[in-house]
Amino acid sequence: MASVRIREAKEGDCGNILRLIRELAEYEKLSDQVKISEEALRADGFGENPFYHCLVAEILPVPGEPHGPCVVGYGLYYFIYSTWTGRNVYLEDIYVKPEYRGQGIGSKIIKKVAEVALDKGCSQFRLAVLDWNKRAMDLYKALGAQDLTEAEGWHSFRFEREAMRELAGK
Amino acid sequence: MASVRIREAKEGDCGNILRLIRELAEYEKLSDQVKISEEALRADGFGENPFYHCLVAEILPVPGEPHGPCVVGYGLYYFIYSTWTGRNVYLEDIYVKPEYRGQGIGSKIIKKVAEVALDKGCSQFRLAVLDWNKRAMDLYKALGAQDLTEAEGWHSFRFEREAMRELAGK
Repeated sequence: MASVRIREAKEGDCGNILRLIRELAEYEKLSDQVKISEEALRADGFGENPFYHCLVAEILPVPGEPHGPCVVGYGLYYFIYSTWTGRNVYLEDIYVKPEYRGQGIGSKIIKKVAEVALDKGCSQFRLAVLDWNKRAMDLYKALGAQDLTEAEGWHSFRFEREAMRELAGK
Repeated sequence: MASVRIREAKEGDCGNILRLIRELAEYEKLSDQVKISEEALRADGFGENPFYHCLVAEILPVPGEPHGPCVVGYGLYYFIYSTWTGRNVYLEDIYVKPEYRGQGIGSKIIKKVAEVALDKGCSQFRLAVLDWNKRAMDLYKALGAQDLTEAEGWHSFRFEREAMRELAGK
């Protein structure tokens, strides 16, 4: 089996990351909501105070293969703040291309996020998953996560720009 | 009716904010999860790169009253990153003391968060609410928010420190 490496994303990965973001949104049947550009990903993730951090999973070529490593998955996260436990990590996206699933690449990304979170003194990391994505839910539970919507009844709410404008009177 | 002011929190508000954080957690029946200290709130919110921002709602004294303004609510938020729309705001906590509810103070806090979000170029703001807190859910919906757990099926997951340690092999 080809060997997989999880590493921090570099600015030059943004084209690949954007392609994977679009694939993930398609998989989630929500691709009409993707408005981000490669330029925004570059500016927002690789400036002085980055708004996010990203890991990529790449398949390393077998010696003698003519091509370089190939990015097949990513995990994008940032730091959040809990008024109960302080600084924590939120894994906004995690995605592995369908043809590379079942090899433990998603688990490797999650393990790396857990390492980063512990290194930064965080006591929790959170993520969100769609209820019909049973495969993902089962994986997170098997890795030790708790479904807080099920256990405690948390619902996610979102105000969009139009609602915000009305609220702000703008 | 007494007049209410929504303003940015100062470092000296952290004692009041911590008391309100504890009251909110009690109201949510989850107060065993509160581990934060006033010192941590001071350090994390008022350094050079603050991990969170906070608004407080205070009741202003009527002229002639012997006491100063009284903090009766807060909204604590930070910036997050959506791979669909870029930089956004997350309202981690919003709370108004029970005896001051029904005066529109919660709505005032939400409106101020919407203003901040728009000023910073955000196109969304998110928050989470417990499903038995119908009063809060109805308010957010009335103000224009969408329940994404209901509409799209999003569930919140969380890894705690113990699960993270196992994942990271630490």
